[in-house]
Amino acid sequence: MTTRRLHLNAFLLNVGHHEAAWRHPGAEPSRITDLRHFQELARTAERGKLDSLFLADGLALWNDVRHGAAGGLEPLTLLSALAAVTERIGLIATVSTTYNEPFHVARKFASLDHLSGGRAGWNIVTSASEAEAENFGRARPAHADRYARADEFLEVAKKLWDSWEDDAVVADRVGGRYADPDKIHAVDHHGGYFRVRGPLTSPRSPQGHPLLVQAGSSEDGKAFAARHAEAVFTAQQTLAEAREFYADLKSRVAAHGRGPDEVKILPGISPIIGGTEEEARRLERELNELIIPEYGLRQLAGILGHDLSDYPLDGPLPDLPPVADGQQSRFTLVTDLAKRDKLTIRELLGRLAGGRGHRVVAGTPEQIADELQGWFLAGAADGFNIMPPLLPSGLADFVDHVVPELQARDLFRTDYEGHTLREHYGLPRPAVRTGTSAGTSAGTSAGTRTGTSAGTSAGTRAEARLAVAS
Amino acid sequence: MTTRRLHLNAFLLNVGHHEAAWRHPGAEPSRITDLRHFQELARTAERGKLDSLFLADGLALWNDVRHGAAGGLEPLTLLSALAAVTERIGLIATVSTTYNEPFHVARKFASLDHLSGGRAGWNIVTSASEAEAENFGRARPAHADRYARADEFLEVAKKLWDSWEDDAVVADRVGGRYADPDKIHAVDHHGGYFRVRGPLTSPRSPQGHPLLVQAGSSEDGKAFAARHAEAVFTAQQTLAEAREFYADLKSRVAAHGRGPDEVKILPGISPIIGGTEEEARRLERELNELIIPEYGLRQLAGILGHDLSDYPLDGPLPDLPPVADGQQSRFTLVTDLAKRDKLTIRELLGRLAGGRGHRVVAGTPEQIADELQGWFLAGAADGFNIMPPLLPSGLADFVDHVVPELQARDLFRTDYEGHTLREHYGLPRPAVRTGTSAGTSAGTSAGTRTGTSAGTSAGTRAEARLAVAS
Repeated sequence: MTTRRLHLNAFLLNVGHHEAAWRHPGAEPSRITDLRHFQELARTAERGKLDSLFLADGLALWNDVRHGAAGGLEPLTLLSALAAVTERIGLIATVSTTYNEPFHVARKFASLDHLSGGRAGWNIVTSASEAEAENFGRARPAHADRYARADEFLEVAKKLWDSWEDDAVVADRVGGRYADPDKIHAVDHHGGYFRVRGPLTSPRSPQGHPLLVQAGSSEDGKAFAARHAEAVFTAQQTLAEAREFYADLKSRVAAHGRGPDEVKILPGISPIIGGTEEEARRLERELNELIIPEYGLRQLAGILGHDLSDYPLDGPLPDLPPVADGQQSRFTLVTDLAKRDKLTIRELLGRLAGGRGHRVVAGTPEQIADELQGWFLAGAADGFNIMPPLLPSGLADFVDHVVPELQARDLFRTDYEGHTLREHYGLPRPAVRTGTSAGTSAGTSAGTRTGTSAGTSAGTRAEARLAVAS
Repeated sequence: MTTRRLHLNAFLLNVGHHEAAWRHPGAEPSRITDLRHFQELARTAERGKLDSLFLADGLALWNDVRHGAAGGLEPLTLLSALAAVTERIGLIATVSTTYNEPFHVARKFASLDHLSGGRAGWNIVTSASEAEAENFGRARPAHADRYARADEFLEVAKKLWDSWEDDAVVADRVGGRYADPDKIHAVDHHGGYFRVRGPLTSPRSPQGHPLLVQAGSSEDGKAFAARHAEAVFTAQQTLAEAREFYADLKSRVAAHGRGPDEVKILPGISPIIGGTEEEARRLERELNELIIPEYGLRQLAGILGHDLSDYPLDGPLPDLPPVADGQQSRFTLVTDLAKRDKLTIRELLGRLAGGRGHRVVAGTPEQIADELQGWFLAGAADGFNIMPPLLPSGLADFVDHVVPELQARDLFRTDYEGHTLREHYGLPRPAVRTGTSAGTSAGTSAGTRTGTSAGTSAGTRAEARLAVAS
C-alpha cells in the first residue's frame, strides 16, 4: 500500500505573517509589491516540492496602515505571473463570490489553469466586511445570503468549466474543422442570483476544474466546504480542537456521498525555526518586541467588535457580548484562547501577532517536524498551511531544514510525482457533466444543507477566514 | 530637436490574424492556449524593441468554432504571466467597462503595473454584443448608455489609482510607521452608475495610471477617446481616410485642452512579408486558399446584420439597410470597401480574412517599411498596430526584417530609452489629483461632450472595435 503522506501549502503574505515582520532587519518592506520577491518565494517552495502556494485577499484596505504592512498585489495577476516562472507548484488564488460574476471568475481560473499547465486553485471566500460592500456600492449581505450566492456561483462556474467537452477541439487543418460545435454547450443557467448563457470562451482546462479550496469555519462555511471544497484551510489552536474539526468536517463530507480523502484538511501553522530552540525563541522575541500594541488593538477590535483601548493592557480580557452575523467563529477563537491560557490583553496581542489566530510554534526543525507529524498521525490534519513569520528567510528555513526532516521520516514526497495541483493533492480530474441545461440549484436545497448533523459544537472551531483577511 | 519616431504595437491573436492561419502548415493550432507560444512571441517583440503587445478580448464565444480558431486565454491573466518573462515591453490588456466593477479593474491594472515595473496598458471596450450581455444576465445596454458608464468607470478608476499619494508608504522600521494615513484617501464616489468608497488596496503604481487605450470609432467612441485615450487603435483602409481620421481625432483632443502628442494614433496593418514580392504574394495566396467561405459569411453576417448565404458568392454585395445601434462604423467600413473596389462577395471575404477590416499589405520588408513610412510622414499615423497574419513566423519576420529597415531610416528606436510603457510612448506619468471627494462626473458633462465638432463625417471612419472582437 502507498504510504499516507502529508500535503504542504505555502501561504505567502507580504514580508511575513508576523504582524511586525516588516520592521525586522530580515525583511525588506518595499518588496511587498515586488514580483521578484514572490518569484524567489515561489521557487523556494517549489524547490521544497510543496504542493502549492496560496495568496489571501480582501476587497478593501482594512489594516491599520500606520503601523502595519499593507497594500499587496491582487492574487490572480500575481499568481499568473508566478505561473510563468515555476514548473510544478500549485497556485491558489483567493477570489470572492460576493462581488464578482461567475462568468469572469470561471474564465480567469480556466485561463490560469491553461497557462500554468493545470496548477490553478481557487480559495473561495464570501467577503464578510462592510468595507468591501462599500467598494461595490452594495449593502453588506447577510451571512446566509452570501453562502447561498456562493453555492449558486459554484454551480454556474462548474457548468461553465464543463461547457466545452474535453475533446471539443479537433483542429483538423485539412478538413477545415476547428472544433465540434456539438461538444460545446450553452449552460443556460437561470437561478436566483445569476442568469448565464455560456459557453465559456476557452476550451476545458488541464484540470477540468481548478482545485476548490475553502477556509470559512462558520456553520454555513462548513456546510459549503462539505459540498464543494477539496482542500480546507483552518485555524486550530489545540490538537483536541483540531481533531474535533477534522472528524466533524470529514463526516459532513461523507453525508454528501463524498469519500473522506476527497477533502484535504490543512490547519495553519506559523513555524519560527532556529538551529537550536534558543535561537528560535530569540527570533520569536525579536519579532514580538517589534509589536506595536496600537496596531494589535485595532486588529483585535475588528475581530471582537469592541475597542479595548480603554482597558489596561496588563489586565484580563473583559467579558464581551458576542458579535453579530458572520464573525462568531473568529470571536470565539480569540476569546477562548484568552480564557484558556488566562492571558492579559498584552499577552493576547502577542499570541495573535504571529498568526492572527493560527498556531505559532517556535523550535528546531526536528521539533517543528514533531509537531506536524503529531497532528498528522493523530487525525487532526491531512497536511498544513505553512505561514512563515518572516519572508523570505522563514520559507527558506522551512524548505531547507523542516522538509528534509519530514522526508527522512517518509512523511513527505522527495519529488513531484504528478504535474497538476490535483495530482499533488491526490485528487481526481472531474469528468464533464453534460446535459446541464435546466437551472436547478442542485447543491443548495435546504434538505442537503441541514442533512449534515454530526456534532456541531461550533464554539471551539477556529475561523480560518482570519487567514485570508489580512 | 528630437527626431519624431513611430510607435509599434504587436497585436497577438491565436496563431495569426488571418482567419485561416490555423490551417497553415506554419501554425500550430494547439498553441492557442499555450503560454510558451505567447512567451516566445513576447520575447520576439521585445527583441524588436516594440513599444507594446496587445491582447483583444470579448466576453462571449461568438466565432464560428466549426471553421475558425477560437478559445484563447483571458488577457489579464496571460499578460501577467508575460510580465514575468519580459523586461521592457508594454503589456496592453482589453477589459470591458460594461460588465465589470471599477474597483476590481482599477485594482488588477494597478497590480499588473506593479508586477511589470510600469508596463501596464488598458484597452477600454464597452462590449456591444447581445451574446456578452447574456453571460451576465443583463439586457444589452444602448450605445450611449455604454459610453456614459465607461466615462464614469474611468473617473472612478482614476480616483482609485490616485487614492494613495506617491509617497504614502514611509516604511520607517525604527519609528514603526508603515504608511502615512493622511496620504491615503477614500474616494467616496457617488455617481449615476457607481458608488465606491475606496481607497484602493495597493500603493500607487509605477506609472500612476496604466496607459489608456481605446479602439472604438463611433461618434461616442471618438468623443470618449478625445477625453481619455492616450493611444488609439483604428482600422483604416486608405491613406485619405486615415488622414481624415487622424486630423479629426487630434482636433477633438485639442478641444479638450490636450496637446496633439498626448494621443498616439495607431492604424492596424497586417503585413504579409516575403524575401521577394513574389514570395509575399505566394504566402498571401496560400492563406487565402485555406479560407472557408462559410466561416467568412458568418463573420460578415455579424458585421452587416444580414445573412448573405443566399446570394451568389461571385455576385456583388447587395444593397443593405444600415444596422442598428452601435454597429454603424463597422458596417460602413465594410460596405464602403466593397463599393469602392467593386468586390464580389467572395472577394470581400478575401479582403476581410486577413485583418477583419484592417489593411493587409503583402510585400518585401522594404515595401512594408515604405507603407509605414508613407502613412507616418503623411500625417495618417503616429505608429502602427502590427497584426501578423501567421504566428509566430509573421512577428519574427517583422522584427528581423522590417524593424531593421525602419531603424536604418531613423524611424524607429534601436533600443529602449525608458522602462515604462508611458516612456516608450513618450507620455507623462500623471500626477495625483488630490481632493477628489465630491462625486461629480467632471468628464461626462454634455457640454464637454458636444464641444468637439471638427468635421464629423463619420461615414468613412473605420470601426476599430473589429480589432478586438475576435
